[in-house]
Amino acid sequence: MHTLDHPSPNQIRIDDVLSALADPMRRRIVAQLAEGHHDQACIAFELPISKSTSTDHFRVLREAGVIEQRYQGSAILNRLRCGTLDHSFPGLLNAIVRAERKASTASTSLT
Amino acid sequence: MHTLDHPSPNQIRIDDVLSALADPMRRRIVAQLAEGHHDQACIAFELPISKSTSTDHFRVLREAGVIEQRYQGSAILNRLRCGTLDHSFPGLLNAIVRAERKASTASTSLT
Repeated sequence: MHTLDHPSPNQIRIDDVLSALADPMRRRIVAQLAEGHHDQACIAFELPISKSTSTDHFRVLREAGVIEQRYQGSAILNRLRCGTLDHSFPGLLNAIVRAERKASTASTSLT
Repeated sequence: MHTLDHPSPNQIRIDDVLSALADPMRRRIVAQLAEGHHDQACIAFELPISKSTSTDHFRVLREAGVIEQRYQGSAILNRLRCGTLDHSFPGLLNAIVRAERKASTASTSLT
């Protein structure tokens, strides 16, 4: 079975991580994974975008080193590379996930 | 004297902050300001880029809400909006500055 390319820990650049997470849809994906949804299939995310756009977002996150993706049958499972990111950029992922949760709580309370 | 436009705290968007800080030259400016160089004039930063490119970087940081700029005579002074950012996105700026310092120490030790 073919596997997907991932940057090794020392190839992960903060430029790419920050660019990837500057997008609200990608932060939403990351925040969902951070909720403890390890190994969540792409299809299980409820995102208000097309499948191809969603696939692009997952790819950007993988290529930046934020998530790990692997095949399970025809599904692609996703998990955050928490340990790797926290080793390279301590506190960064947590700070972004916290900001995302706060923003999502604020927007929910407005509706 | 004319003043420069800044987003108010509730106008600052994490998308803009992360995009602004995805650039290595802008992180270098921010890391220098975080060293305690409050109110540092643009001209006092030693950056390996042209004056106009540098002016653009400072503008992006200001428009994203990361720095405050004000005129003093013909000079523009810069300071980080630490309190505002830390209130909106706790821990984010610190995590990015820490990563930047680590990267700069690593590159110095290679030379």
